Amino acid sequence: MSPEVQVLNLAKAGRDASQKLLSTTGPQRNRALLILADLLEGAHQEIFMANKKDMDLAQAQGLDEARCERLRMTPAVINAMAEACRHVASLPDPIGEIEGMIKRPNGLLVGRMRIPLGVIAIIYESRPNVTIDAAILCLKAGNSVILRGGSEAFHSNCILAELLQKALVQAELPAGCVQMLPTTDRAAVRELLALDQYIDVVIPRGGEGLIRAVVKDATMPVLKHYHGVCHIYVHKDADQHKAVAIVENAKVQRPGVCNALECLLVHQDIAAEFLPRLAVALAPHKVVYRACDRSLPLLDNAQAASPEDYGQEFLSLTMAVRVVDSQAQAQEHIATYGSGHSEAILTQNHDRAMHFLSVVDASCVLINASTRFNDGGELGLGAEIGISTSKIHAYGPMGVKELTSLKFIVLGEGQVRE
Amino acid sequence: MSPEVQVLNLAKAGRDASQKLLSTTGPQRNRALLILADLLEGAHQEIFMANKKDMDLAQAQGLDEARCERLRMTPAVINAMAEACRHVASLPDPIGEIEGMIKRPNGLLVGRMRIPLGVIAIIYESRPNVTIDAAILCLKAGNSVILRGGSEAFHSNCILAELLQKALVQAELPAGCVQMLPTTDRAAVRELLALDQYIDVVIPRGGEGLIRAVVKDATMPVLKHYHGVCHIYVHKDADQHKAVAIVENAKVQRPGVCNALECLLVHQDIAAEFLPRLAVALAPHKVVYRACDRSLPLLDNAQAASPEDYGQEFLSLTMAVRVVDSQAQAQEHIATYGSGHSEAILTQNHDRAMHFLSVVDASCVLINASTRFNDGGELGLGAEIGISTSKIHAYGPMGVKELTSLKFIVLGEGQVRE
Repeated sequence: MSPEVQVLNLAKAGRDASQKLLSTTGPQRNRALLILADLLEGAHQEIFMANKKDMDLAQAQGLDEARCERLRMTPAVINAMAEACRHVASLPDPIGEIEGMIKRPNGLLVGRMRIPLGVIAIIYESRPNVTIDAAILCLKAGNSVILRGGSEAFHSNCILAELLQKALVQAELPAGCVQMLPTTDRAAVRELLALDQYIDVVIPRGGEGLIRAVVKDATMPVLKHYHGVCHIYVHKDADQHKAVAIVENAKVQRPGVCNALECLLVHQDIAAEFLPRLAVALAPHKVVYRACDRSLPLLDNAQAASPEDYGQEFLSLTMAVRVVDSQAQAQEHIATYGSGHSEAILTQNHDRAMHFLSVVDASCVLINASTRFNDGGELGLGAEIGISTSKIHAYGPMGVKELTSLKFIVLGEGQVRE
Repeated sequence: MSPEVQVLNLAKAGRDASQKLLSTTGPQRNRALLILADLLEGAHQEIFMANKKDMDLAQAQGLDEARCERLRMTPAVINAMAEACRHVASLPDPIGEIEGMIKRPNGLLVGRMRIPLGVIAIIYESRPNVTIDAAILCLKAGNSVILRGGSEAFHSNCILAELLQKALVQAELPAGCVQMLPTTDRAAVRELLALDQYIDVVIPRGGEGLIRAVVKDATMPVLKHYHGVCHIYVHKDADQHKAVAIVENAKVQRPGVCNALECLLVHQDIAAEFLPRLAVALAPHKVVYRACDRSLPLLDNAQAASPEDYGQEFLSLTMAVRVVDSQAQAQEHIATYGSGHSEAILTQNHDRAMHFLSVVDASCVLINASTRFNDGGELGLGAEIGISTSKIHAYGPMGVKELTSLKFIVLGEGQVRE
């Protein structure tokens, strides 16, 4: 079979499976997830062996330490995947929910019913556990999924895909519900992305290069998860004690993630008091600053900010700092340099807080809280497949519900249109 | 200025305007719509003159009668546009609505606030009134819009764009809220579709060729409005009297539109009784049939269906007919040949109706009602910009609310993440 035909058959099988999934029940899909949890726990040895092949290859190819770490499957990682399966199984089934039923003047009942999206392609990089996390969320929401993981995790992903297949068979669900592109060839991805008659949406998870490549080739909609250039604006009426704690949390708790703070904006009236207080709190963490003219003299460990430091995702203990004349200037800065991810204001002034909340465009806008809360678990979604920075369909953390759509339903008694 | 720079500036101006729109109020945006209504009513002469240029050119170029008709702006068309402005102004403002506010265990209040999508590009064909309909819906929902109409309506669209600009100025809104691509050059469209850093979504309205071309070039998400291959399944427990009326309405009331009936599926147990009854009712309308082996002897005006007749959008008084063994076969037929638009079952059996409702994948699934009801006005949306057949973001008629998104909002009192 030629590679083109192989990809086409995969997409068709995904479509078939998605149609069969429409007749399955939530408990049946949950059963597959619970079986998978048991299978994962019983397959530690097989997973380690497959993972070792990837790790050996990675080391032989001289992959950097951080990437090797992301690749490694420890007992803790495997157990966390099994727990994720059980947790997702315990979440409410969104499919079939009916919203907003109204009665029209002609007596028609009109509402919307929640349905699966259909066939979802997920294209991702290093971490093999994404294979399980992505597959179980898609399946929970009644979607079939086509996975394409990073080439460096190929062997690990293959064993996980095998376990997924076993779980599907045991739960009497079609094998096409979860499929893996059986090659790391880039041409195969391009072929997949041309098949919008079979695939409803593609979700790339990885660096900007991957996302750009997917957007360029995809004929179906792409739900993008770009980087986070997150700001906190400390208004002059902020509770400075709380503000120090929030900025510290947002910057240092886990600096390498997308909802970590990258740029602090401080109102000019409080900068001389607030910034030195903050610097004391952040000193033990060895935070370094790229500071504007006015903040530079107020901070140790600071160097003058260059224009590129604004809008930069440092993903480290480096932070840009700017003193602003007004809230309007802070909001303008965010509109110019923000990436639509997470933006916060710290203030005790209700009007100013509500203005910020209304006007700032980001997937999550926060008042008096750390940007680190922009996360599916923290916002109450139960589990997430990533944080969308596209405004279409889903903006912010995407949970099970965000992997569904709504169709109109009309219940009549013989009505015809005038 | 080079054409590339012109398109780029247009996109940037659209982005700037969309950010300024975030600080406007609903009443301010409504004011622009009401001013526009008055301007349209006062500009009959200018509009006719511009439209005459397009009509003369169309006739000189030998455009067919149907396309010329779509191009023509009569007093009724102009008054209908003015009325649409007033109607859309009267609809509730969706922006700033907050949904599903919950309290997290740590005391954070978490919900979602409705926001504009941002910058919307709309690429459409003949009818110049789409210029007004699309612009006012986008503006109502706080979006800026970039319009690109059909080349044959260029002069008509230009005068309408001028009136739109006047209304924006009088309502003190930025000129960039509504812009028209000042050329009918296709290369300019391709450039526009590459600018996903400025444009959030593109909506093509027109034939399949236009939609395919937009999907191919667009780097931002595309909300597709494909054709409608709509089915009605007459179950054996249908009320046949009502069923005849519904099929008649769905087929003949306006056969040239996307929610009209294209293929009738009838259960074998009632075919011999139902089809001749139906044929009597449809005879005065001169409906012709493409019939399967079993329905062919039961219908006058019928010829044997060829395989291509299934899945065909006739947009005329031709209708495909197939007798099926079971509801499962009807649903399989719909899954194979339907276009995800409008699908109906006619039956008095509650279980069978609910099964059809759950399992059939279409933007609108109807029980005992005409497929013609899949329309924004009929379903209670107030106004619509088209009927989406993409499941992402909005499936079915798109009204003002479907031109918005939701962002997460988090109200804290100093919370940090553990």
